[in-house]
Amino acid sequence: MSLPTVFSSPSGSEYLFWTRDQLVANWRANQDLKRLAFGCRLNALSAIQAAGSGHIGTSFSSLDIMVSVRHFLASDAFLSGNTPDRGLFFSSKGHDAPAFYSVMHLCGELKDSDLLTLRRLGGLPGHPETITPGVPTNTGSLGMGISKAKGFIKAHRMDNPASRSPVVVMLGDGELNEGQIWESMPGAVRDGFSELIAIVDSNKIQSDSWTDTTLPMGDLRQRVEGTGWHYLECDGHDVDSIVSALAQAEQDERPSFLVAHTVKGSGVSWMESFDGAGDYYKFHSGAIAEDLYRDAISQLVPGFTDGERGISSGVGEETRNEFDNRTPRPRATSMLVLWEQLLPQLMADNLDIVIMDGDLSYDTGTHLARNEFPDRYIQAGIAEQDMVSMAGTMALSGKTPMVHSFSTFLTMRAAEHIFNNATEYSRVLYFGFLAGLVPSAPGFSHQAVSDVGLMVSVPRMKLVEPACLTELASAARWALNQGDPVYFRMGGLGALEAAQTSVNPGELVERVSGITVAFVASGPLLAGEALSAISFLTEAAVGQPALFTMPWLGEPLGDDALEKLRAFDHVVVLENHNPALAKHHHIADQLNGDQSVSVTRMGLTGIPSNGQPSEVLNHHQLDAAAMVREYQQLVGR
Amino acid sequence: MSLPTVFSSPSGSEYLFWTRDQLVANWRANQDLKRLAFGCRLNALSAIQAAGSGHIGTSFSSLDIMVSVRHFLASDAFLSGNTPDRGLFFSSKGHDAPAFYSVMHLCGELKDSDLLTLRRLGGLPGHPETITPGVPTNTGSLGMGISKAKGFIKAHRMDNPASRSPVVVMLGDGELNEGQIWESMPGAVRDGFSELIAIVDSNKIQSDSWTDTTLPMGDLRQRVEGTGWHYLECDGHDVDSIVSALAQAEQDERPSFLVAHTVKGSGVSWMESFDGAGDYYKFHSGAIAEDLYRDAISQLVPGFTDGERGISSGVGEETRNEFDNRTPRPRATSMLVLWEQLLPQLMADNLDIVIMDGDLSYDTGTHLARNEFPDRYIQAGIAEQDMVSMAGTMALSGKTPMVHSFSTFLTMRAAEHIFNNATEYSRVLYFGFLAGLVPSAPGFSHQAVSDVGLMVSVPRMKLVEPACLTELASAARWALNQGDPVYFRMGGLGALEAAQTSVNPGELVERVSGITVAFVASGPLLAGEALSAISFLTEAAVGQPALFTMPWLGEPLGDDALEKLRAFDHVVVLENHNPALAKHHHIADQLNGDQSVSVTRMGLTGIPSNGQPSEVLNHHQLDAAAMVREYQQLVGR
Repeated sequence: MSLPTVFSSPSGSEYLFWTRDQLVANWRANQDLKRLAFGCRLNALSAIQAAGSGHIGTSFSSLDIMVSVRHFLASDAFLSGNTPDRGLFFSSKGHDAPAFYSVMHLCGELKDSDLLTLRRLGGLPGHPETITPGVPTNTGSLGMGISKAKGFIKAHRMDNPASRSPVVVMLGDGELNEGQIWESMPGAVRDGFSELIAIVDSNKIQSDSWTDTTLPMGDLRQRVEGTGWHYLECDGHDVDSIVSALAQAEQDERPSFLVAHTVKGSGVSWMESFDGAGDYYKFHSGAIAEDLYRDAISQLVPGFTDGERGISSGVGEETRNEFDNRTPRPRATSMLVLWEQLLPQLMADNLDIVIMDGDLSYDTGTHLARNEFPDRYIQAGIAEQDMVSMAGTMALSGKTPMVHSFSTFLTMRAAEHIFNNATEYSRVLYFGFLAGLVPSAPGFSHQAVSDVGLMVSVPRMKLVEPACLTELASAARWALNQGDPVYFRMGGLGALEAAQTSVNPGELVERVSGITVAFVASGPLLAGEALSAISFLTEAAVGQPALFTMPWLGEPLGDDALEKLRAFDHVVVLENHNPALAKHHHIADQLNGDQSVSVTRMGLTGIPSNGQPSEVLNHHQLDAAAMVREYQQLVGR
Repeated sequence: MSLPTVFSSPSGSEYLFWTRDQLVANWRANQDLKRLAFGCRLNALSAIQAAGSGHIGTSFSSLDIMVSVRHFLASDAFLSGNTPDRGLFFSSKGHDAPAFYSVMHLCGELKDSDLLTLRRLGGLPGHPETITPGVPTNTGSLGMGISKAKGFIKAHRMDNPASRSPVVVMLGDGELNEGQIWESMPGAVRDGFSELIAIVDSNKIQSDSWTDTTLPMGDLRQRVEGTGWHYLECDGHDVDSIVSALAQAEQDERPSFLVAHTVKGSGVSWMESFDGAGDYYKFHSGAIAEDLYRDAISQLVPGFTDGERGISSGVGEETRNEFDNRTPRPRATSMLVLWEQLLPQLMADNLDIVIMDGDLSYDTGTHLARNEFPDRYIQAGIAEQDMVSMAGTMALSGKTPMVHSFSTFLTMRAAEHIFNNATEYSRVLYFGFLAGLVPSAPGFSHQAVSDVGLMVSVPRMKLVEPACLTELASAARWALNQGDPVYFRMGGLGALEAAQTSVNPGELVERVSGITVAFVASGPLLAGEALSAISFLTEAAVGQPALFTMPWLGEPLGDDALEKLRAFDHVVVLENHNPALAKHHHIADQLNGDQSVSVTRMGLTGIPSNGQPSEVLNHHQLDAAAMVREYQQLVGR
């Protein structure tokens, strides 16, 4: 019996992977796709462990399917890599990237060492991107898969009219919440795209909980056949069942919608979809503790070598219900944690508040409040447009909707709906998480850099980016006492220490007093880097720059704030978003009359990089070191 | 037999309306909802004629339903106005506004004189807005209706837990293309919203052509019942059939989806959905010629007074197939017309180009090209997200997709998809029409003012706003010879005269030479106003300002352009969009070093006004007169 190979990360931690040679040898010896899938599971898990984050549950549930699809498309040549005439496979639910990469690796499209680079700068992006050769298209935001498949097919047919080269796209079952899935289906029927096969990794669990309780999709067969698609099902963990279904799908002249019944976390006993124990599935996202990792390995290895999963030591079962997998280390006090705690208080004080969330309750801080006020919580499912439009008419009806999601999904998926609401002169409050560069491991589908430019262009919209509890609470209370829609930009990892007095629009919060150079930041990320830069400069007796935070974006600064800034020779505006008419230019315009103050910008541009926080901050030249250099350049003049 | 009342518009034109008194008297005498619907048809048509634009076909097909719904909700008290405990009715397909308003008028919610104010500044908005008392919510962008209905219901139930006050929302059948409709349905089942009734005005025609050929929706019953909704049908022109269906719907404990079979243009013989004659339905939008108006009246009046439609004089039949209803006057040479003519040439020269359109072929200039290159045209239906995502993978496959829609729908409905495409380092070209303030009659759901701020925030996106054929052709050829995505902003009514030499990024086109003050515009609308202002000032010998157009937005100006501007004391940047980091600030920043040049902005902010072009330009202080005043203020200093 062979053992997986030990790989060391740059930090010296060790992880176990099956090399490509080992995978190929196993295939030659056994011709068993299930074993290969077990091998891929180990690799996917280890990649996630090395990265410190990633989506285990959906990676595991999808692997028997993915391996089967690759073999189906290329038969025994499948280990030779992706060749154009063998069809196309990609996953619309991009968060199964670890699985997708493990299969790319299996098929010779990635090197062994690549697996250690998940979510690292210059490595494998947290959600698949076309910059990685062999990745057909960028996925990470749900719902786009069938549309993308149709684009590939249409282009291919234009160039190869007789070709019906299969295009297989994997979907998630929670993903079916997204309207775009249903929007994209009729066109495939109209255009006779028989080569289109959509496979649903139907593992019955979305981000927080069961699909059936989150947003039931009804009778899928009826709905799918009603559009004119071919509907079929299979056992997503039985290779023969999968392959047989694929063959039927390929034969059928209609586009095919194959529901593969799977178990989230399949492969490791205590990850396999919980039977109602606990109130959320613990292995949707996040790396796991060391002892759990070892137990998982002990189960997965025999699955690969012997074709039968190993027995758990029991450690997973013990901790299964208690262990909060998402936070193996104590949680930093982030804006998310602060919001979790503040929200119930606000709801107790303001009976009109209704909280809305798109299946991201634990990631947007609403889960405590929804336990306390279940009648004032609306689970919208993975359906941002629906959520925002519902919020609009609830606002017209006298409620104060607080709409939550990740910033990218909330602002860009529902931009027109946010605009529509704004034109009704009502008040909806929007909370976007993962705003800005960090968290940076998931990739740009999750790192919001365009949200500020977008939201500041929506009439009546106000924008706030709080850096600490005081700023958050001040902004929240202010928002509840005025009538315009407000977008709360919630980002970064650790919040700043709470400011001592409450804050109002147009004000700056002095975080560190200083002279000559003033940094102005919004939100905790770049403020935190500035604090480090200032510590360095002060301790090195090089200089004593000041730091202010500015919670309101898109607002002119008040006289007091301007007075404070005029005391400096240089103001450096830090922007954790792409250039927008929201901060730097406002400040520059207002100080314009004063020729003695220079106003410059340090901020994001272009597409944000994927990787660990310190890597990407360094890459974008927005870390403390870059701020030190900026200071030295400015005072050097 | 009574006659409709003559109303005169401010311009002196005369239109016929039934007054509320006449409508009420008719009801008291006949208790016949069909007659009332005929009365409303006349009023809706006259409103459209007075406005000069509006959607006749869908207004006519929906009126029997709308009148029946109002009566169903309030029974014989329905003429007393909308009272909260009598349920709620609104239309998600906001372009049936003329019908919706005619029914509001019937029910005592609008005054007789209001009907003359359709699409006028301060009057009845082109698509319903909440600023009009009695309008429940803003509609004009398709697909939001069921979501909005759910928001009303949820809020109402929270305050009145036992109440099941009906909420009836009208949908269009083309509107079913929009994914949001299907996204919003499961939640209504999950939450048991039995009081929700969606009625589809199923008139079988979308904007250009039949729904069945545009984007077939499949077996609606199967699809709807599959979500768990109650599905039923009725004859949308038979009041008894409608009312019986509504009663069944109200009884059913599921949310109800009632498909009402209708005829687009019902009520006037030659408007009733064409039987394949011609290649598009001529009465979707637009006012009609005088002789057609009179013939329509001759048919509609007896429908109201006698309960039986009058006989046509035949004029409509003669012209039915030939007369292009959308343009009763010769068409101005607009950017739309220029694009119609240029596009086929580009397609002949560039074989990779694939044109994509969302059921707006005649409104986005693709209809000539699609006739010439049918295999390179993709009808996406009213499905912008699907369209944009398909474009992305077509671009990855080596095609050059040219994606067309109205700017609001394209940029805001598919923002995340545009972003996703951009991150793939591919090239998709986007063409947004109705960009900016004018055309202004439809209302802000169609007037794009946020598009520039949004698109300039998308990484890699380039923006162009051409004002004449030369600028358009230069930009198109440039776009085809580089690798970034480009957004073409197409607005205004009449294009400028073609510039004499081609244009490149960073360049300004001198339109009128001058001294002291230079206006800088992009696109034809504000450039046209500036030309008028300059003519006035020159002829009055008051001054001689210059005018430049600047086709590339978001780009720094080149040295030559900056040199030109430095010759002036004042540069006034005209922005036909809300403030964004795309023009004014770029210019200001670049000229910043030169203290002798002041750079100011005249542009849009907030929510754009609805009304006729000259009204809204005046209201926003962006007409020639305002530019004259600006000039005088600047040189006065």
